[in-house]
Formats: sequence, structure tokens, C-alpha cells
Amino acid sequence: MTYDIVTIGESMLRLSPPRYERIRRMRTLDVHMCGSQQNVAANAARLGLKTAFLTKLPKNALGLYAKDFCMSCGVDASHIKMIDEARLGVNFIEFGATPRASRVVYDRKNSAASTICPGDFDFDVILSGARLAYTDGIFPGLSGSCSDTAIEFVRSAKRAGCVVAFDVNYREHLWSPQMARQVQKEIIKNVDILITTQWDSEIVFGYKGSYEDIIRQFYDEFGCPVIGITLRENHDVLRGAWQTLLLHKGSLTYGQKYEMDLIDRFGGGDSWCSGFLYAYLTSDGDIQYAADFGDAFCALHHTIPGDVCHVTADEVLAIMGAKKDFRVKR
Amino acid sequence: MTYDIVTIGESMLRLSPPRYERIRRMRTLDVHMCGSQQNVAANAARLGLKTAFLTKLPKNALGLYAKDFCMSCGVDASHIKMIDEARLGVNFIEFGATPRASRVVYDRKNSAASTICPGDFDFDVILSGARLAYTDGIFPGLSGSCSDTAIEFVRSAKRAGCVVAFDVNYREHLWSPQMARQVQKEIIKNVDILITTQWDSEIVFGYKGSYEDIIRQFYDEFGCPVIGITLRENHDVLRGAWQTLLLHKGSLTYGQKYEMDLIDRFGGGDSWCSGFLYAYLTSDGDIQYAADFGDAFCALHHTIPGDVCHVTADEVLAIMGAKKDFRVKR
Amino acid sequence: MTYDIVTIGESMLRLSPPRYERIRRMRTLDVHMCGSQQNVAANAARLGLKTAFLTKLPKNALGLYAKDFCMSCGVDASHIKMIDEARLGVNFIEFGATPRASRVVYDRKNSAASTICPGDFDFDVILSGARLAYTDGIFPGLSGSCSDTAIEFVRSAKRAGCVVAFDVNYREHLWSPQMARQVQKEIIKNVDILITTQWDSEIVFGYKGSYEDIIRQFYDEFGCPVIGITLRENHDVLRGAWQTLLLHKGSLTYGQKYEMDLIDRFGGGDSWCSGFLYAYLTSDGDIQYAADFGDAFCALHHTIPGDVCHVTADEVLAIMGAKKDFRVKR
Amino acid sequence: MTYDIVTIGESMLRLSPPRYERIRRMRTLDVHMCGSQQNVAANAARLGLKTAFLTKLPKNALGLYAKDFCMSCGVDASHIKMIDEARLGVNFIEFGATPRASRVVYDRKNSAASTICPGDFDFDVILSGARLAYTDGIFPGLSGSCSDTAIEFVRSAKRAGCVVAFDVNYREHLWSPQMARQVQKEIIKNVDILITTQWDSEIVFGYKGSYEDIIRQFYDEFGCPVIGITLRENHDVLRGAWQTLLLHKGSLTYGQKYEMDLIDRFGGGDSWCSGFLYAYLTSDGDIQYAADFGDAFCALHHTIPGDVCHVTADEVLAIMGAKKDFRVKR
Amino acid sequence: MTYDIVTIGESMLRLSPPRYERIRRMRTLDVHMCGSQQNVAANAARLGLKTAFLTKLPKNALGLYAKDFCMSCGVDASHIKMIDEARLGVNFIEFGATPRASRVVYDRKNSAASTICPGDFDFDVILSGARLAYTDGIFPGLSGSCSDTAIEFVRSAKRAGCVVAFDVNYREHLWSPQMARQVQKEIIKNVDILITTQWDSEIVFGYKGSYEDIIRQFYDEFGCPVIGITLRENHDVLRGAWQTLLLHKGSLTYGQKYEMDLIDRFGGGDSWCSGFLYAYLTSDGDIQYAADFGDAFCALHHTIPGDVCHVTADEVLAIMGAKKDFRVKR
Amino acid sequence: MTYDIVTIGESMLRLSPPRYERIRRMRTLDVHMCGSQQNVAANAARLGLKTAFLTKLPKNALGLYAKDFCMSCGVDASHIKMIDEARLGVNFIEFGATPRASRVVYDRKNSAASTICPGDFDFDVILSGARLAYTDGIFPGLSGSCSDTAIEFVRSAKRAGCVVAFDVNYREHLWSPQMARQVQKEIIKNVDILITTQWDSEIVFGYKGSYEDIIRQFYDEFGCPVIGITLRENHDVLRGAWQTLLLHKGSLTYGQKYEMDLIDRFGGGDSWCSGFLYAYLTSDGDIQYAADFGDAFCALHHTIPGDVCHVTADEVLAIMGAKKDFRVKR
Repeated sequence: MTYDIVTIGESMLRLSPPRYERIRRMRTLDVHMCGSQQNVAANAARLGLKTAFLTKLPKNALGLYAKDFCMSCGVDASHIKMIDEARLGVNFIEFGATPRASRVVYDRKNSAASTICPGDFDFDVILSGARLAYTDGIFPGLSGSCSDTAIEFVRSAKRAGCVVAFDVNYREHLWSPQMARQVQKEIIKNVDILITTQWDSEIVFGYKGSYEDIIRQFYDEFGCPVIGITLRENHDVLRGAWQTLLLHKGSLTYGQKYEMDLIDRFGGGDSWCSGFLYAYLTSDGDIQYAADFGDAFCALHHTIPGDVCHVTADEVLAIMGAKKDFRVKR
Repeated sequence: MTYDIVTIGESMLRLSPPRYERIRRMRTLDVHMCGSQQNVAANAARLGLKTAFLTKLPKNALGLYAKDFCMSCGVDASHIKMIDEARLGVNFIEFGATPRASRVVYDRKNSAASTICPGDFDFDVILSGARLAYTDGIFPGLSGSCSDTAIEFVRSAKRAGCVVAFDVNYREHLWSPQMARQVQKEIIKNVDILITTQWDSEIVFGYKGSYEDIIRQFYDEFGCPVIGITLRENHDVLRGAWQTLLLHKGSLTYGQKYEMDLIDRFGGGDSWCSGFLYAYLTSDGDIQYAADFGDAFCALHHTIPGDVCHVTADEVLAIMGAKKDFRVKR
Repeated sequence: MTYDIVTIGESMLRLSPPRYERIRRMRTLDVHMCGSQQNVAANAARLGLKTAFLTKLPKNALGLYAKDFCMSCGVDASHIKMIDEARLGVNFIEFGATPRASRVVYDRKNSAASTICPGDFDFDVILSGARLAYTDGIFPGLSGSCSDTAIEFVRSAKRAGCVVAFDVNYREHLWSPQMARQVQKEIIKNVDILITTQWDSEIVFGYKGSYEDIIRQFYDEFGCPVIGITLRENHDVLRGAWQTLLLHKGSLTYGQKYEMDLIDRFGGGDSWCSGFLYAYLTSDGDIQYAADFGDAFCALHHTIPGDVCHVTADEVLAIMGAKKDFRVKR
Repeated sequence: MTYDIVTIGESMLRLSPPRYERIRRMRTLDVHMCGSQQNVAANAARLGLKTAFLTKLPKNALGLYAKDFCMSCGVDASHIKMIDEARLGVNFIEFGATPRASRVVYDRKNSAASTICPGDFDFDVILSGARLAYTDGIFPGLSGSCSDTAIEFVRSAKRAGCVVAFDVNYREHLWSPQMARQVQKEIIKNVDILITTQWDSEIVFGYKGSYEDIIRQFYDEFGCPVIGITLRENHDVLRGAWQTLLLHKGSLTYGQKYEMDLIDRFGGGDSWCSGFLYAYLTSDGDIQYAADFGDAFCALHHTIPGDVCHVTADEVLAIMGAKKDFRVKR
Repeated sequence: MTYDIVTIGESMLRLSPPRYERIRRMRTLDVHMCGSQQNVAANAARLGLKTAFLTKLPKNALGLYAKDFCMSCGVDASHIKMIDEARLGVNFIEFGATPRASRVVYDRKNSAASTICPGDFDFDVILSGARLAYTDGIFPGLSGSCSDTAIEFVRSAKRAGCVVAFDVNYREHLWSPQMARQVQKEIIKNVDILITTQWDSEIVFGYKGSYEDIIRQFYDEFGCPVIGITLRENHDVLRGAWQTLLLHKGSLTYGQKYEMDLIDRFGGGDSWCSGFLYAYLTSDGDIQYAADFGDAFCALHHTIPGDVCHVTADEVLAIMGAKKDFRVKR
Repeated sequence: MTYDIVTIGESMLRLSPPRYERIRRMRTLDVHMCGSQQNVAANAARLGLKTAFLTKLPKNALGLYAKDFCMSCGVDASHIKMIDEARLGVNFIEFGATPRASRVVYDRKNSAASTICPGDFDFDVILSGARLAYTDGIFPGLSGSCSDTAIEFVRSAKRAGCVVAFDVNYREHLWSPQMARQVQKEIIKNVDILITTQWDSEIVFGYKGSYEDIIRQFYDEFGCPVIGITLRENHDVLRGAWQTLLLHKGSLTYGQKYEMDLIDRFGGGDSWCSGFLYAYLTSDGDIQYAADFGDAFCALHHTIPGDVCHVTADEVLAIMGAKKDFRVKR
């Protein structure tokens, strides 16, 4: 099979006490899956693309849970490796309300995915004919072998003629900015579509200034054809807005801005990225359309429990451009 | 027994995944009942009136569920017919959050109620002594025999000396505007209290212009003694406001406006109608009081899960007119 | 892609109040999927086979739910047709306890699947290279066009060189025994593996006598190479036993008998069938092994909520033959 | 309205942690209603009789909950008095499993019902034309005024020509055996149908010996036309059997015995009583039929969560006499 | 053991239907504990102080539930007396949304705590070495013996050299303003830290005017060294703000104001009081710091289900003073 | 403070899908705590003893959850160390039904507890005056430093004059039998009360034969004053029986046997051990009484969700010796 998008990275269990309960006093946990690279493969499949996700999972009931989840989203999970004596990373999420911010307790060390190393997947075969390859700054942060694999992945993708997309996604609990910068620089050399945030850009690359300044510094250093920066406003813990700014062929483009209820803001960046890539691939690279589509998809995502945005392309189009219509759809 | 209000129509199962979950990823469903004409009978009974609801239900566990529900609200369900080989209509509701609007998937075709036909109920007996009869534009849209029955119902009511109340309530999934208009014209001839919205009025009757314009066009064509139009503002998906405008004896009256959290906005129009009719009947037709009472009842309704507004008249009076008091009631 | 098993039929929503609650007093509903032919495709995929399921679903959130479910089990859902203006069949299940038997309220009429007709699927392409084709006596009972399609399906399968498997599965709410017999006779002519129960056999074909007598009457009339009859003992509502008897090449074989807690007995027959077919295909037709495997898989199925048996082949093998071991597996 | 059965007594909130959780570690509570006399009115209404329940409830949200519940079962709740400054009695139930017996923590003192006193209800009007009046040994145990009212109730019923039914139902937490005996003697003088258990009979009246001995001692002392004793076998905490023995016109009759899963055994005695009274009234006093019907109704009751047996007469008849059939009803 | 804070009062069960459901239509109840004086002991223990709570509980499963809860918060529950034939007070809470205010149905009469009387606890021993003693205006309102005990408690505390803190907390359902004033005057004579609200101050003491006016009238009458008044703004039912004003050594101090989502506003005043007392004790009486800490703690409290604020001191410090940061904490 | 029992070991989160759901298809998880040594400290505290539990927990919300849980059971958690950069071990439990055995997926590697090393706790101080010290074969299996600490712990206990109790508790996923044997031999030298099972004894020490044979081989090799072997019968997955055999001063004693519903059998061995130790300490070493008490406590434990047996000593005594009484306790 040839894929529209192939992603590589980690699949994690996401456990959260319902309705603002604190982890410290939890009674039950809602079960979801997360992992940025899995999210992108799943979201793009939701929108109708053929996607594959590459990872390693423990060969136990939790690994099967993760695999069933991927398949349920329409992602090709046939390349996933189930390995013995491994664990599935776990995130415990506590949903807050103003002024208590939401919170994540990570328990992801030594996961099956962190043991991914070059050679685990035959990229040349899997990426053959693929249109786009995606990974991000979390995956290489999992371990040294993951760093090596991420670099191998983007190089293979480049060789295979894929568009290469990458989200800076810095996570402090994984590695230092210095380590992240060193590895990401190697990756970004091969990247066609680069996505970042103001905070990530400053921490990892030391870029300061306005959104435009940051995006231009990225361009000056790496020359990626498309560079996007996501602009999240947190009015408070339960309400916010989303917009994006892109640089493409020298011109700056703002996506449409959306006000949102923050029902579940986890995976928000991934959903924008997924929507953008979907629209980019299906519009012959119309950047304005892709930005707007990504923003709408991302806004819808914030209203849905879980990290994956179970929304069809028709639903996204229905809220784009139109004047706001909050009436019941019958 | 003589009733304050008799309504005729459909009782439907209302199933919704909890807390913003999408139907596509549902795990459990919350169970409620809906149906505009049932809602009005139930709401009026909650407020203390003697009401009866006329419908047909399948003779199975789902039909018994529906009947038990009616009785639990204090509605006289003794006229309901339980029939073999029939089904209960089902609504699947998905609650949204900004910018994702709420959504209904209807699965109501061929319901027991759609088989209602003239002669199923002895209106002359049931309506004898009744003060008010109510149905709406959904019921005649269920089938041709329901159209005929609705016309028979309002005519019988008129004959029996009842006040006849009717809500335009157009539903696109049931019939075309042309068909709706044709049947509703026949009904509205007999109507004393007509309730509508801007959207319904334009779609079905082609009336355009301001709220006042619409209400006056209705009056000009049908001459109903009381005409009300409901004004819903959707600030976003979770917050809105409610108000109504009425025409009575040539003068226009605005009800009190309420800001609301939209916990469950389904059945909102029915609740206003119920509150208005209750207050109208218990105040000797004081339109301002009835509008204000309806608005307050409707605002409370939006905060309660389910289509029926389980609120007492005392609770409504407590929030009317008074300056806003959001403190805990102890 | 070439499949191990292709099945055709219906996918239904299965809604049940939790923990012995009556439908009449339900507060919430647990959501599962059912449908015999979908169950067989899903179970076989759980065991590791490549399977496809053919059906029609409504093009709405419920249809997407059904499709996501199929995919989550590893079934190829790419041939499923999403159609407008259709509905998904619904089963309401009420779980009983001794002496109150469990109960199903069917609401499946006019489902999307009932509109399946010859020509909807290109069987020659889909079945090309497939090893086995399965349907049952429920699917042709959905409508006349389904009857025609079922006959076309088994004929195409025969032509394509598939093993053809069929479960009599008579449902009184769908059609009369006479109608079922007429259509099934036409189907069974093409069947290699026939599965039935004592009750189905008597009602539809008038076969009486012992299990052995029934199986032999089937053989005498139709000459199917493999004939299985499933033997369910209901000790009471919550406890039972399962065994099967098979006729193959003139000799009778009993599968291993299992005592079971009846946590969820729906889909039990389908799970035996699935386990049997899996083991038959992977053992070069070892009937004793296939019967034993089917019995073990079916016994495990009865302990798992839902119609599909989410169990791996390793888990089945672990309870076969061994002396009973009910200790915790750590 | 004229009633088939009128009962008087108490309505209590019944709160229980789900699925064997201890009260000491509860996280949520399932909400049901209980109260023997309410149970009898509700059960009989479920079976199709016209029943009324007489009690006093607090004029608050809990009282409204109780009243809505009564109405949902089809009981006429219009005679119930809502009073200020009162409380609703509460039962906390902890469901056990072998060998931990189930347990009740009563918090019922000073309930609204305990303030019922002679004159609160106009028995002559309410019982006029009624066929049967029921109360039990719990109601007079609530307070001195309840004792007086219970005596007044049975006397009025007698006067009105009702069959008078009474269940001894001794509760240690309410009063001493001496007090109970004194009041009950006064009541039983007027009783036509007396129901008791071995334990109650010994504690309150000092009757010892076999079931037959006890029943005869009752007859010798009070001469009630029908005397029934319920025989519960507890095989363990989750499994048991139910049967009854009756004395009528000098001859002893055993009802049919049922084996049962004890999903919820609370209200079991009340359900037998209800089923018996229903069948007695609808069969012109056929004692064997009434006993069998009561036993079957009671057995079904044990499988349903809550104190009320939401079962139709058809469902009861379906399991009577027939050979056991535990298969799914489709 | 010597304690930082000792409180005396009542422990109550707090039952609430989930997610805006009305008590009248409840299906399940969430279980929490409440009681102002217990809340203060629990909150202070959450922050790291050694605290003891003095009360009487019923010697049954509910009493054990309450005791386990206290212990789970780190409160020393060893002085609590478990008594026979007693009941645990219960609060039923209904959470509202705009414009329906939240509501409490109290069922607390004749609780075990209301039987507390002088001599039940050896205050001289328990308070020996303690730094602070706390009770409020609810506890003495439970009964005459509780009034006497409250007075004894503050006098003993004074004797033992404790800082004595008291919250006016007037509850209309317990006693009249006259009775409250009489007892509270006796108590406040011994109080070092007095906490009140505008409403309580006017009702009980007749103080009118601005917040400053009220606080000064308290000072003029009682001369308490520290007097605090809490300022709650209810923007609507789900959104509000919190601030406090304190008088200390003649100067007025405002704490920091917080905007809040009102997830669970019960126990809000107690949480401010707890945070203030904690910070007061750990900062050598820095009033500005204590007010700010209390306000932050209280704001966090409003976002957490239940009456107790399960928050660490570090979490409070993290939101104090800083510019608002509503991003996810990873 | 001086303790009755001090235990050392691990505290783990225990997550399980409700009601027989498979982990592979979980939707929510019930949250409990487990860990044998924590269970013993908690159970003994439930029965009224003063206990302390020694462990290390991560300094995050999960660690606080664990600590709050310990405190809620009445265990002194003040010696527990909260450490940075650590994780809490997690067990995922899947509850089975016949013939599907229950199953545990361990995710406990690199837990905070596994980093416990000699010197972390000042045993001489903590055990000073303690009556009994307990650990088991799981704790030393966590890591080499835990092995060393376990040995140090029993030696310190011996020195401090404590009774030393030890449960062999072999876990294959932690270490090999050889490694376990080597460490356990060193520990058992200091043990006064040794507890084991047939399976553990054979795997770790190679002891074969009857229960009596095994117990005598232990005595011959180690000479422990009290040796107990627990006898679990699994009738099937949901029903079993429990009994124990003890060797003390040369004579063999059987405890009372209990039939049980296996609602939650995890922690069963720990509960027997806890009940036995409690009764041993409070009866001056009456072995028969202690065995019987342990068996009754353990049987009750199997009916309660979670690893800890929230049962009072009075409840245990009520089911001991008496003839079985499964009636409701009112």
C-alpha cells in the first residue's frame, strides 16, 4: 500500500479523572490514547487520508489496546512492532478550571517506543510512494536511539521524495534545550514544513521577538519552504482562541481565528498540524486554505474529549469562513 | 376527569453520550425522553396543571419506559395506546461546545406515533371540559394520517370550547415547507395562541423582516388573538439569552430577557410555551405576566438535563422580576 | 488484498442498561455493536486472520461509529457503503438473572443493511483469492433483496473457490419458517460448512430427534462436507455449558465441553463459529482441533461484555486441553 | 376514583454503593425508593391495578423525588401530603456477597411519615368503593400516632367493605416485640389476609414450631380467613429460593418454589404480597393461583435492582408452571 | 501530640447528583464530606499543619466513612467519639447553572454532633501546646449543648494560650439571629481572628454600610486583633471572583482578587479561612501574605469537587502574585 | 509513637476496568491501591492496631494519592519518603469469569519503592517498642537494594525484640527462584511467623508433598515457631473456598473453612495474614483463634472491592464459629 502520510513516534495511555477531580482524590479514570505522532496519523486518517503509524508497543493487553485504538481511527497499524518485556508510557492528566491550570504527570520512561532504533523499520519500503512523512521534537527526545531513528526517518523520507513535516514540540521532561537543538538541527535540514510555537522557538533555538520575527529566523537558518507558528490565547483555563501564522514563498499568512471552549485542549497543536497537512495535500499546497482548515479543525478538536479529533472534512468545511452559527444542527 | 391542557403528538427516546463526547466515539448513553407535545404536557403538569398526553407507543419495554416517564411527570397517560409491531422513535443527541454546535441524528421514521390517524382517540370525550388544547407543526409532519389527525384535533378542540395553542415548529427532515404550509394553514385557522420563530416563519410562510413584521404578517393572515415569537441569542454554544415578543389585542409586549448557561437547550421552545400557557391559564390571560413567566421558566429549563423542565411554579416566581441573585439557596 | 474470510450482513447498535436493570427503568445504556456476520469477521480478525465485512451503513454519526468499531477489531471496512437517508438497526438488550431470562427488543426494520441488493458489491473482485466466505440465516431474512444477495454471495464464493460457511440462525421476528426454508435451501446447496442448533433445525427444516439425528438429516438432504450443531446448556440464567457435535467424512466428533459464567451470552454462536473457522483454516481442516478451539473460544466469549470476543489465539490455546486452572494469571 | 388497593405507610430514600462496595468506602450511591407499603401500591399498579398510596412527605426536592417515583409506577399520589419542616427517611444499603451478608443502616427517625396521625386522611372517602386495603407492621412502629392511624385505617377499611391485608413485618430498630404485639393484635382483629414469616411470628407472637404450626397458631388466635407464611431459603448471599405456604378454609397450600439469583433482595416480601393480592383480586380468590403468581412475581423481583418489581402480569404468567426456560427471549 | 490547629464541630455527608441534575430527578449521587470546622482542620492538614478535629459520629458504617475521610486528609481523628443510636447529618446539594442558583437541602437535625456537650472532650489536654483553636457560628447553632461547648472551647483555648479564630457563619435553618447574636457575643469576647461576611454581619449583628464600615463596627464592639471580611462576587452561577479585606493593627488590607470558574463553591469560605490561618501561622502573622495566600487557596478550592481543598502549599504559591498563566503544567 | 505492627515494602496503583471488561477494550478504570506490605499495615489498622508503613513514593500527585490512601486506612504514613524523579508502580487488573481467569499486567519496574536502600529508614528508632515487624518475598524481589533492606529490616526487628512475620510471596516477574531462595533464606533465619503456599514453597524451596509435608520441611530447615500455609480452592473463577493449616509447637491446626464469592480476590493472602497477626497479637498467641479469625477476615475480604479489607473486628467475630447466616443485617 502507498500512504498519504507516514508518522513515527510513541503511543501512550492517557488517564484522567473525570470532571475536574484531582488525581490525588481520583475514584475512576477515563481512558484515552495520546502521542503527537500517533495523533497526526489518526487525525489525518479521520479526514480521509491513508496513513500509517510506526512505533513499538508492549506485547500485552495494553499494547493491544493501543493497537486497536490506532486501527479504530483508520490508521494502518500493521507496521507496529509488539515487543516482550516492555511497557506502555502513561500520562495522567488532571483537568483544571480557572485559576487552576490543567496538569500532566508523565510516567513514560523506558517505554517500548523509547527502544526504537535505526533498522527497526524498513523506511525505504514503507515510505515508497508516500506523499508526506511526519515526526516531531518529542520522538527524538525519548532516547538516543530515537534521535538516531528520527534523523534516519527524515533522511529516508527525503530520499523517497516525500514532503517532510516536523513540529518542534519541545518537552522539558525529556531532554535539555541544548540536546534538543543539536538533534533538531540535523532533522530540520530535511524539513519542508516546519511547525513551532513562540515558547518552543525561544527555549530550543533562542529565537526571540514577534511571531513574525521568529518565523523569519527559522527561515533564515533552515530555509524550510513552509514555516508555521501556532498562536494560542488562553483567556482563562476553560476558554481560549486559536490562530496560526505561516511563511511561504516569502509571504506571511494568518489563518482564521477561532474562539473556543477548552473542553480538552490536549493534542491541540497536533490537530492543527493534521488539518493543515491534510488540506495542504488535498489542495495542491494552497497555504491560506490549509491554514484556515487547520485552524477550524483545531478549534473543533478543543471541544472533543481525547487527543484525537474525530471530525470529518465536511464538518470542518461547514464552520470555515461562514458566519458563526451556534444553533443545533438537525 | 377534565383537563387543563390536552396535547397530542409523539414521545421519543433521547439518547446522548455524556459530556461532549461524539456519537462516533460514544461509550455510554444517557437516557431521556423528548417530543414537543409530550414536553408541553409534562411541563404544564410540573407546574401544577392537570394534563393529558395523547399518543401511540409500541407495546414493548421501550413503550413502557415512555409511559412510565409521562406518569412520573404527573401527566395522565391513560389515553395512550400501546400497539404491537411498532417502534419508538429515537433521537441521538451530541452536545457540542464552541465552535462545535450540538447535533441531532434522528431515527424516527415509522414510529408508533406516525401511525396515529383520525378516530384513534375520541377527542369529543377527552376534550370535554378541557381548558386548552395544544399541538405543533412537528406532529402533522409525521405522516399524512397525523396531518389529518392534527386538523381533526384542533377542530374538535375549537368545538369543545378549548383555547387552541399551536407552535409552528418546522422540521426539515419531516416534510417540505410547501407541505407544511398547506397543512398548517388549515390548522392555524382554529388557533388562538400561535407561537413561532423568525426562521420557522420565513421557511414555512415566507414572512420576512423584523420580529414585529413577522408577528404582524401572521396576524394579518390568520388573526390569531395571541401571537408569540421566541428570540434566542446564541452567544456561543454554551451561553445564550432568551426573550419573547407577543402581539395581543394590537399591542406588542416583550417578556423579560434572561442570560443562560446552555446546559441542555433541547426542549427550550417547548418549555417557554408551557410556562406561557400555564401562566396564561392561571392569570386570566395576563399576557405580560405570561410572557415573563414563560421566559423565566424557559431560562431555568436550559440549565436542566433533559427535555422536560422539572421546576415548580414557586421556583419560577423566585427568579422573576427580582434582581439577579446567584447565591446558593440554603 | 486477498482475504482469509469475507462475510456479508448487518451491523447493529446494541444498547443495554447496565447490571440487570430493566429497559423500562433504564438510566444509562452501555453501547456495543452486534450483527452475526460482523461478529464472525471481527472475531476471526481478533484471532489473526485477514477479514473483510460487507454491509451498508447510514452516512451519519451512527454509521461512522459502526465503521470505526469494525476497524478497531482489525476488519477491513473499506468495502462498506455509507448511504444517505438510511438508519442503523438497533437492539435493546436487557440482561436477566435467574429466573428472569435475558431479553432483546429489536428495532431493526428498514435498516441500511436491509437495502443491500445484488450488485451492491463486486463479489468476483472482493472474493478473488479469498479462502472462506461466510453468511448466515439472518442476513437473507432482512429483506427480499438480501435473500437474493445472499444467494448471489454464496454462488460467487463457490465460483471463486472459497470454502462456504453458513449458520442457519433462524429469527422469528424476520420471516416465517417457510420463507426461511425456501431461501436457505437455495443457499445450503453451495455450503461446505453448515452450522445449526436443535431448535433452528426443527423450526426451519422440521428435523427432529437427537443431535446426531438432526445432523444426519442435514447431511442426507444437503450433503455438506462439514456439519456442526451447537449444544448450549442453560443451568440457569447466569451459568451454563457449551459443547458442539460435528459430522465430517461420516464420523461424529464432540468438541470439548466448557462450564461458563454467562456474563454476556450474546454472539455466543457466532464466536463458536469464528473460532471453529479460524482453527479449521489454520490446521488444514483438523475437525477435532477446530471443534475444541471453537468451544474454548466460545466459552471465553461468554465472559466478555459485548458481541465480539476480544481474545487472542494464544489465550484460547492456554485453556484448551489443560486441566482447569482458575488461578490469577500474573 | 375508586381504587383496587389503597395502602398507607412510609416512603424512604434507598441509597446504596454500587457493586458490593462498602458504605465505609463508597464513592457514589445508586438512588432507589423503598418502603413496604409504597412497594405494595407500586407493585400492584405495575400489574395493572388502580392503587393509591397514603403518606406524608417533606415539602422539598426529596419529597418531590418520592412523589415523582410513586407516579412513575402508576400509583395515585394525589392524596400524599407535602409538609414543611420535615425529613424523608433514608436507608443506606450495602450489598454483600458470601459470606458477607447484606446490611442496612437506617436513618429514618423523625420522618415526615412518622408524624402521620388519625385525621390526616379522610379514610371514609378514600376507601369508599376500594376493594382492598393494605398496611403492615412497620407503619404502626414508626410512632404512637402511626399506631393509632394504622388501627383507624384497618377499621375504616373494614367498615368500607374492603378486604384487609396485613404483613407482620417486625423491625427491631423501631419498637419492642411487646409494643408491636399489643398494637398488631388490635389491627389483626380486622384482617382478612395475614402474611408473616417464621422469624416475625416467633419474635412478636411467640409462636414456635413448623411453618404449619405457626400458621395454625395465627388462625387459632385471630381466625383470619387467609394466612400466608413466606419461606425464604438463603443458599448463600447471592443465591436462594422462595416459596410460600397458605392456610385458607382449613386447607394448606404450597406455592410453586423458585430458585433465584439474589440481585436485589430488598422488598422481596412486599413483592410476594403484591403479586398474591393482585392474583387474589383478579381470580376471585383462587388461593393456589394467587400463591403461585405471588411466588413467580417475587422470584422475578429478586433479579431487578430496587424495591419495586417493574414486571407486567404477562411476564409473570410466562414463567409460571412452565418448565424452566432460561434462553434469551427475542 | 501538640497540634497547630484544633477545630470542633460537625462532620456531614454531602450528597449531590452529578452535572446539574436536579435532586427531584436524580439517578446517582456523588459522595463527599462537609462541615465547616472539619473543612478547616482538613484544609490546614492538606497544607502541612498538624491538626485535630473534635466531633461525635454515629457508630455505624456512615460514621466510619466520615472518620476515614478525616484521616485521609491527614487530620488526627483519634479524639472523635463514635456513639450508638446516633445519626450522621446529611446535605443534599443540587448544582445549578445560570440563572438557576445552586441549592442545599439540609437533613441535619438530631445528628451525633448536635449531642456534643461540655465535658465530652478534655479541652485542657487536647489544646495543651496547640497554636490555634477554631470554631464557627454553625457549631453553637446545632443545639444548646453545642452553644455551651463552643463557649467552653474558646475559653479553654484562650486559657491554653492558643490564638482563637472564629467565623460568624450564620445559618438561618439552625437558629434565629437573636439567639445567634447572644451566643456569638459570648464567644467573640475570646476571639483573636474574626471572619465574617457582609450578609452575616448585618443579619446577626445589624452592622450595615460598606465592607470597611462593617469591619470597623466589629472592631469597635469586640476589639478582635484581626478581623477579616470575605468579598464574593457572583458574575453568574458558574463564574465569580473572590477577595478579602482585613483590619489589623488599625490598617486595612485587601488580599489579591481572583477570577474563578465555580466548579464547586461549597466550603469556599472555609478554604479562605484555612489558607489564611495556615499562612498566618507560618509567617509570624504577616497579614498581607496571609490574605493573599488565603485568596489564592480559596480560588483554587472553587475548581475542585468537594468541600475540602486538596491542594499543597507549593501549588498555592505558584499562582500567587505571578501574572496569570493558564497553560498546561507539564 | 510505638507501633503494634510495622511493615516495609511497596505501594502500587491498581487500575481495573469495571465488570469483566477486558483491558484491551477498556473505557474507564476503577482506581484502588495495592501492595502486600501496605495491605497488611492497612488491614491491621482497620482492625484497630497501631501500624506504620515504610516506603518511598514519587513526589507528585500519584504519590500523594498513595499517601492519602494509607492515611485513610489509619496507617501512620509519616515515615514515607516522597522523592523526586520517581514513579509509582502500576498494576492493571482484568477481572475474569469462568473459564477466563483474572489477569494482572504489571508495570512496576523502576518504581520509587525499588530504590529503597539500607539507611533510608532509621529502623532502630521506628521499631523501638514495636510488637511485630512484617515484610514478604515481594519486597526484596524489587531490587538488590530492596533485598539488602529487607534483610536489614528483619535483623533490626529481631534486635528490637519484635515478633518477625514473613510471607514467602514469590513473584516470577521479579526474580528467579534461585535468587529468591538465596535472599529469603537469609531473611527467614530471623522469622517467627512464616506464611507460605504450596506453589510458592515448591517453586522457591523445592518442597513437595502434602500441605503437612511442606510445612514440616519449612520447620525442619528454619525452625520458625509458627508456620502457616494457606489453602485456596478455586471452584471456578467466581467461587472458591479458603482455609489455612498451621504448625505451632509441634501440633498442626486447621482454621475454619469458608465458602466465598470471589468478588475481588486480590490481596486475599495479605488479608489472611493481617487477620491472623491481629488475632495472634490480641490473644496472646492463641493459634487456633488466630487461624479462625484470619480465615474469617480473609473470607470477608474476598467480597470487597480493592486490596484492603475494610472490615471491623466485630464484623469478623460475628461470622466466626456461628452457623452460617446469610440474611440481611438490619
